[in-house]
Amino acid sequence: MVVVMEERASEEQVQHVIAQLVEKGFDVHRSTGQLRSVLGAVGGNRSFDTRLIEVMDGVHEVLRITEPYKLASRTFKPERTTVSFGEFRVGGDEVIVMAGPCSVETDAQISASAAAVRKAGAKVLRGGAFKPRSSPYSFQGLGEEGLRMMRAAADAEGLKVASEVMDVSQIELVARYADILQVGARNMQNYTLLRELGKIRTPVLLKRGISATIEEWLLSAEYVLSGGNTDVILCERGIRTFESYTRNTMDISAIPVVQKLSHLPIVADPSHGTGLRDKVTPMARAAVAAGADGLIIEVHPDPDKALSDGAQSIFPSQFDRLMAELRIIAPAIGRSICLDPVARRGWGT
Amino acid sequence: MVVVMEERASEEQVQHVIAQLVEKGFDVHRSTGQLRSVLGAVGGNRSFDTRLIEVMDGVHEVLRITEPYKLASRTFKPERTTVSFGEFRVGGDEVIVMAGPCSVETDAQISASAAAVRKAGAKVLRGGAFKPRSSPYSFQGLGEEGLRMMRAAADAEGLKVASEVMDVSQIELVARYADILQVGARNMQNYTLLRELGKIRTPVLLKRGISATIEEWLLSAEYVLSGGNTDVILCERGIRTFESYTRNTMDISAIPVVQKLSHLPIVADPSHGTGLRDKVTPMARAAVAAGADGLIIEVHPDPDKALSDGAQSIFPSQFDRLMAELRIIAPAIGRSICLDPVARRGWGT
Amino acid sequence: MVVVMEERASEEQVQHVIAQLVEKGFDVHRSTGQLRSVLGAVGGNRSFDTRLIEVMDGVHEVLRITEPYKLASRTFKPERTTVSFGEFRVGGDEVIVMAGPCSVETDAQISASAAAVRKAGAKVLRGGAFKPRSSPYSFQGLGEEGLRMMRAAADAEGLKVASEVMDVSQIELVARYADILQVGARNMQNYTLLRELGKIRTPVLLKRGISATIEEWLLSAEYVLSGGNTDVILCERGIRTFESYTRNTMDISAIPVVQKLSHLPIVADPSHGTGLRDKVTPMARAAVAAGADGLIIEVHPDPDKALSDGAQSIFPSQFDRLMAELRIIAPAIGRSICLDPVARRGWGT
Amino acid sequence: MVVVMEERASEEQVQHVIAQLVEKGFDVHRSTGQLRSVLGAVGGNRSFDTRLIEVMDGVHEVLRITEPYKLASRTFKPERTTVSFGEFRVGGDEVIVMAGPCSVETDAQISASAAAVRKAGAKVLRGGAFKPRSSPYSFQGLGEEGLRMMRAAADAEGLKVASEVMDVSQIELVARYADILQVGARNMQNYTLLRELGKIRTPVLLKRGISATIEEWLLSAEYVLSGGNTDVILCERGIRTFESYTRNTMDISAIPVVQKLSHLPIVADPSHGTGLRDKVTPMARAAVAAGADGLIIEVHPDPDKALSDGAQSIFPSQFDRLMAELRIIAPAIGRSICLDPVARRGWGT
Repeated sequence: MVVVMEERASEEQVQHVIAQLVEKGFDVHRSTGQLRSVLGAVGGNRSFDTRLIEVMDGVHEVLRITEPYKLASRTFKPERTTVSFGEFRVGGDEVIVMAGPCSVETDAQISASAAAVRKAGAKVLRGGAFKPRSSPYSFQGLGEEGLRMMRAAADAEGLKVASEVMDVSQIELVARYADILQVGARNMQNYTLLRELGKIRTPVLLKRGISATIEEWLLSAEYVLSGGNTDVILCERGIRTFESYTRNTMDISAIPVVQKLSHLPIVADPSHGTGLRDKVTPMARAAVAAGADGLIIEVHPDPDKALSDGAQSIFPSQFDRLMAELRIIAPAIGRSICLDPVARRGWGT
Repeated sequence: MVVVMEERASEEQVQHVIAQLVEKGFDVHRSTGQLRSVLGAVGGNRSFDTRLIEVMDGVHEVLRITEPYKLASRTFKPERTTVSFGEFRVGGDEVIVMAGPCSVETDAQISASAAAVRKAGAKVLRGGAFKPRSSPYSFQGLGEEGLRMMRAAADAEGLKVASEVMDVSQIELVARYADILQVGARNMQNYTLLRELGKIRTPVLLKRGISATIEEWLLSAEYVLSGGNTDVILCERGIRTFESYTRNTMDISAIPVVQKLSHLPIVADPSHGTGLRDKVTPMARAAVAAGADGLIIEVHPDPDKALSDGAQSIFPSQFDRLMAELRIIAPAIGRSICLDPVARRGWGT
Repeated sequence: MVVVMEERASEEQVQHVIAQLVEKGFDVHRSTGQLRSVLGAVGGNRSFDTRLIEVMDGVHEVLRITEPYKLASRTFKPERTTVSFGEFRVGGDEVIVMAGPCSVETDAQISASAAAVRKAGAKVLRGGAFKPRSSPYSFQGLGEEGLRMMRAAADAEGLKVASEVMDVSQIELVARYADILQVGARNMQNYTLLRELGKIRTPVLLKRGISATIEEWLLSAEYVLSGGNTDVILCERGIRTFESYTRNTMDISAIPVVQKLSHLPIVADPSHGTGLRDKVTPMARAAVAAGADGLIIEVHPDPDKALSDGAQSIFPSQFDRLMAELRIIAPAIGRSICLDPVARRGWGT
Repeated sequence: MVVVMEERASEEQVQHVIAQLVEKGFDVHRSTGQLRSVLGAVGGNRSFDTRLIEVMDGVHEVLRITEPYKLASRTFKPERTTVSFGEFRVGGDEVIVMAGPCSVETDAQISASAAAVRKAGAKVLRGGAFKPRSSPYSFQGLGEEGLRMMRAAADAEGLKVASEVMDVSQIELVARYADILQVGARNMQNYTLLRELGKIRTPVLLKRGISATIEEWLLSAEYVLSGGNTDVILCERGIRTFESYTRNTMDISAIPVVQKLSHLPIVADPSHGTGLRDKVTPMARAAVAAGADGLIIEVHPDPDKALSDGAQSIFPSQFDRLMAELRIIAPAIGRSICLDPVARRGWGT
């Protein structure tokens, strides 16, 4: 940490700050300039609240020089992490596409979804069994019955399963059926949940909170990593801004930013990122062009009849076309989108 | 809901929209103008996702005419709600002040805090035993031991107790010691937690999420209310904006806005609202001047040694002075701030 | 406009609102429901301030059903506009790339820039002669001398010229040298300037204000269009959000949104959109993948020595590589990026 | 500036950064720690773009230790500035209230406004003759005729005049009639205008841009101050956030923040800050309670008939009541609101 003293700070004030820093376990190095003193403080605790120094008399500003997260940083682990589940892995050359309906509704609906997305090249079936809804009067999901339906549909198509876990009490249940556990944007700072997910070994897909900075997001990943679960996939899904035409503003630039700061893979969710069906396709293309390691997309065989988020779900035919476009775009940055997971199995990875 | 068709919409498109609305349970009334058709749809489900209509061909815009919350609205209950705990109540003529340290740390610290804030006129002792921290490496609270200490300190001074509950698993424990259960900003959309809080009868203080709209906040209150717990106090504690000088931007205007839309009482938290000690006092004054029903303020006997949020905690002497200023301001809007809860007990309320 | 009355609104209040609407020139249609009355008001003035009705007693909400802009809307002109300058046009199948340094500095610098960007496939040379700088102590541009240098460098390479105009007093001068006049983000609501630009016939590139909604942006375009200048190109260049890692958050989704609402072409500026050199390339790719009609990019032969914005300027070699990547991506959405404007001249457009 | 090198930075990279800093005129001091090197750079140019160092290889982060503004800072001038116009001054013990209609419309309207606001205790008549409107189809103001009417109305009541200047070309004209020149939020970064206002000696009321950080706002003040005009009054008028219930979110905390960073007086505009009539009064009280040096409020004798912003204008009777409330609140922080400028004249200031 660097402490910049005010130009008018007295020598007594400077000494008081130094004493406080030493007491908190820092080594202090002082530079006395013509205009002001600047103190460099090293050591101490990574989670030290720098505002404690900021409010001291004579202090102009305190600047932190270490990121507050460690395990999630490139400094700690320079090479990129790949997260594997079965024969697939996120973070390698292949752009992995996860697709399916917002909620699991019926056996027929989830089976039709699985067949459609597999055929187009998706590797993971997504679908919610427990739904966080902003209104208590909305459809809240089918629970375990939904998980069972989704697992069966995925297995029939050779797909993996990703599903959301909303509360500590659901972890064991969801992990029994799913290969990837999603943490929704509203739970990004549910620390009780994150801590428990650190204790298991199922990959976690951690969505960015609707108003979370990238730093806060990586700190939430740190909760999972510090528990010993190293398989964390980050997911950009739009942030809240003043623009209200789209439901959220998808922060495409978060993709290259995260890839610079962290070794963790990052995927993008253009369905929640925009909230509007006709914006999903262009934003999915943009995410892959920007370097995303994967996509998670809502596809529904009959969106107008969907029990939740139908308005942001695309039709299977739109999904087919999107996948074809992505197969042109991915090579521009040295990535690929493979066609058929069934065929692929023979190749090994 | 009002559906505005595009100027170029065909008659077939209009009919398709009408059919869809009728199927969803709405009664539809059509106005055909020179330029375009407008459809009024009444009935149906309060939580209907209007985007389902928005994505239909020929639709220009869909406008919702009913708030998605009901029990929290003034339409449902025109007269203001007061929330009582013991002899005190929030939402009446008296501005209720809750104060104390961010975290309970030791018996001596919490006792000194309780004595200091009671003397200055606070009615409720606040303090955290379970702390949600953005870094996994920060102090996480004393748990039940902290609750026990706080209860004892409050009882010795005739104060009530407010403390945070972070997870469903903590409700029973915290409710055993506290008179008011706080739901933190990060948990404002933890629906599992809200639903459980609807089942008990302890008052809930629901903080606004850092990027929650007022509508979303009232919808979260609706989760608690719809469970049968009518004692909800809302708490404005700052929203996230582009301005980074203050930790958050305290939305003082949310106070009169909430009071117009809802019957629930609203208090303000200038400590988290600004994150900086020297901004707490002016913002506390502003909140009361704007009509807040109460305040919740971090006061620490020795902020520089606090284990959490010391930088936004004020000294007891600053709190004394603030209370004196508030006693001048409150009468400007027909409110009062009473002096001493011990003396007050004799009067009844 | 649709006026939703409160459930408790009295008949007298409803009548008072109707009278007010009629007085303002609207025709009013009333629907009386079980719960509340809803008034449809048509006619009147497009710029009527609906808040005037919103503050009346008994009014719950007022919903506008017409966009406040007209000439910029797809409703007014369904087919897409292409803006031509010489043999080039923005808004057609070709993605037009404008590139060059932030500021014109010397003859050598601008000539080297022109040669480099032309060779890679750019069609327009960009560069500032008048610079809006947030600090009065920063480099403010070379003025007319810079324009002269840029014109000469562009002519030598067969490029067109785009340059910023900051004030009404500069229009005539800049228009003498440039083929496209840029209006910077800070001037997006400088109505005096916009009005004057409506009177000339040089194409205008209108950047989105840092916190402008898409609606406000189109209203600013309306100022130019309503003066008679129909050649307006919109430019997304990043909006201000809470995320501070990037200078701005580039709103890629604005590209498909604008293309739905308006017939005007839209280009993207990834240099200002991110503010960081290593993010320019991925965001440029993303913009083209999302459907942008063009790009405007800062390229400097020696960015570390640039007098302004060097940190967001890319090297010519990075620009070469970006153009190669874009040539792979553009066909995915039926667009092209042509190689050489000199060769191209023979073909006609 | 402090340059934090990456942990993995090579010695060559460190030397390259040092060389670059020295070339740019900085003196460099290096601290080599166990984990990384940190470079302190002093001297150089206040407006140096630190991103130039940030993009160099091996650099982790660059931290600026000097505010980019100088004349506006408390470091430069520790004692508070008071801005005088005639017998009044902003920034002293008295809270100065400026009030009047959004636009000057007729002689009768402006005279009635002047009489009403003077009687309640306002010292300055506000009103627009040139109006910046987001739609080209809205009422644009009466121009010089409006200024003449306002001057006459103010003189008749012993009031001063504040009016907006939108463009360099209007400065001379408006300054002939007004005592205070307002710069609107949309023009806060119109540097051509600010520079010209630095050359005159009429006080300038500089509104905060709708998305301007406090630092950018003070930099804009610096443009005026650096031209030699030291009479700058800052005006908080609401910032743009995700909350859409109010037109803007009034940043009340900006009042104490500005008073800490700068010596310039600051007033608040609750009319634009909220955009809704019934929120003006609580927010005006909040601003004074937070320490504002003054208020600027829209008051209209017949708001429902106002040609602009009627919905946020309060009635004279509401203004009377607000002033009575403010007279109770102001003494809580050692301020006063004087009753009658006519009477006051005898006392001198």
